[in-house]
Amino acid sequence: MKDFQDEDALVGEIAGHFLPSGGRKIRLGIGDDAALWEPKRGFVTVLTSDWFLEGSHFLREQHPPDSVGWKCLARAASDIAAMGGTPRCFLLNMVLPAAGIGKWLKGFLGGLRRAANSLDCLLAGGDTTRGKRISISVTVIGEIREGREVLRSGARAGDALYVSGRLGEAERGLQLLRKTGGMANRKNAALRKHLYPEPRVELGRWLAERNLATAMMDVSDGLSSDLGRLCAASGVGALIDADRLPVPRGVQKEAARQLALHGGDDYELLFAISPRKAWQVPPSYRGIPLTQIGKITKGQGIKIIGPGGEDEPLRAAGWDPFR
Amino acid sequence: MKDFQDEDALVGEIAGHFLPSGGRKIRLGIGDDAALWEPKRGFVTVLTSDWFLEGSHFLREQHPPDSVGWKCLARAASDIAAMGGTPRCFLLNMVLPAAGIGKWLKGFLGGLRRAANSLDCLLAGGDTTRGKRISISVTVIGEIREGREVLRSGARAGDALYVSGRLGEAERGLQLLRKTGGMANRKNAALRKHLYPEPRVELGRWLAERNLATAMMDVSDGLSSDLGRLCAASGVGALIDADRLPVPRGVQKEAARQLALHGGDDYELLFAISPRKAWQVPPSYRGIPLTQIGKITKGQGIKIIGPGGEDEPLRAAGWDPFR
Repeated sequence: MKDFQDEDALVGEIAGHFLPSGGRKIRLGIGDDAALWEPKRGFVTVLTSDWFLEGSHFLREQHPPDSVGWKCLARAASDIAAMGGTPRCFLLNMVLPAAGIGKWLKGFLGGLRRAANSLDCLLAGGDTTRGKRISISVTVIGEIREGREVLRSGARAGDALYVSGRLGEAERGLQLLRKTGGMANRKNAALRKHLYPEPRVELGRWLAERNLATAMMDVSDGLSSDLGRLCAASGVGALIDADRLPVPRGVQKEAARQLALHGGDDYELLFAISPRKAWQVPPSYRGIPLTQIGKITKGQGIKIIGPGGEDEPLRAAGWDPFR
Repeated sequence: MKDFQDEDALVGEIAGHFLPSGGRKIRLGIGDDAALWEPKRGFVTVLTSDWFLEGSHFLREQHPPDSVGWKCLARAASDIAAMGGTPRCFLLNMVLPAAGIGKWLKGFLGGLRRAANSLDCLLAGGDTTRGKRISISVTVIGEIREGREVLRSGARAGDALYVSGRLGEAERGLQLLRKTGGMANRKNAALRKHLYPEPRVELGRWLAERNLATAMMDVSDGLSSDLGRLCAASGVGALIDADRLPVPRGVQKEAARQLALHGGDDYELLFAISPRKAWQVPPSYRGIPLTQIGKITKGQGIKIIGPGGEDEPLRAAGWDPFR
């Protein structure tokens, strides 16, 4: 049995979930050919898109539908946070099977609405079509004060290198989910981080507004891969100290280190701070620990100080869909 | 054999196709977490997304890859034209197989670049990931002068109803492609319209800048479906005259009429004009015919004057992925 009569009915169902909060702050939202958007005066627009695909990014049988809804928006919003911007509205693009999807869709839209409310980010439009497997592409539109954007390319040798939160926790949560076939305890912190990550919007904005970070990005594919991208964009290297990594709790030491270095899906912020400003970085911001894990160096390579005290090169081994 | 080593290499290949023209007019394009965008002073931002999926929107074996590249941008840009806006940049989101796709990708990027150049619309970013079948989601960012946007909802009873170009030609082109298994003569006008549609950007902007159209949208799913949406948004009905439809050439009369009423993929503009301004609408604009096909009426229904002169209700029978 079909879950909706046609595309207009599906769009109506989606819009219905968001109407109470939508429409106020976007100039024109769902229902026309395109949406209209204007940032606050003195701000520029920040734009990003992210895929979230059944089979590669989530499993329909194991991931609760409300987590899929939450996460598809949260992870795209994290790219806005990584520039120091604030997410404001989003376009939701979905490929859905025509049948057997009604209950899943309700759960999905519930989680998406929770994320949208939590981020104060409104549904502005999108596109829906039919396909065998669920595909989601979310475009988030945000704003940032003119000139305050923090790029990947601004790190300089000597900068202190920080991360927010704990690294590797989300990957640990995924391990738990796989081990239990989706029946893991939903109160577990690592599992919650895998299912309902919280993009560091306030932290990113604070760092940008205060002009603290010289470079910033979010850690979505794993530190070893993402740090390489930040360094390549800035034309620098980095040295990190394995003992300082904020690793997941409750995991044996070497395994915890591997998770922190290569685990994906954390959506924490990785940022560089000029040495003369490093004293302004508190040990935590609104309850999120900020940890100096190393520093930016001259040259190209990324090295890690291992347990024996000697440097060794760090290989990019985070998540890559094509590797 | 894999066509690219990893995601960064793929992004590099895509960016390489666009570098000569990119980067000048976008504040920040490919390569960071998000793109930065600012419209001209006095303009607001217009946003739209469109799916283009292997199997439902194109066939990898039958559609030339450069047509897929051209069309995925052109059809999304058409939604910007339908508001009276001008496309400026786009986010390209692609799901690609990891192997056997190198040659296809080159053709695709060539067609995409041609469309981007023709529309003066720059690649600003996007997301790439791996999957069995090719999926494309394009988000186009455009601008429109503050207050000049033309919505679907402004049509009033008595307005004259127009379409640009010919309706049903693209559907006719698809029929030819199917009949010949992809070997149709590429110079055929209907086939070209199916493969390389040209969004009516200049026309839409002209109608908007002159405040001529009370309501506008693009005809992408077929007149019978899209006119219903314009009328629903405006709370009006419409009466159209079958004899005035600009039908495809070289097709028997009744078949041509059915193509014009229900065929999809034309990306022509459908617009309503207040009767006191109808004299300002020329018979063609920059070589594109503008045809009055009927008028907006009170009430809800859409009727068509048939060959015998009597009205009959027109059923929405355009393309719907869920029907």
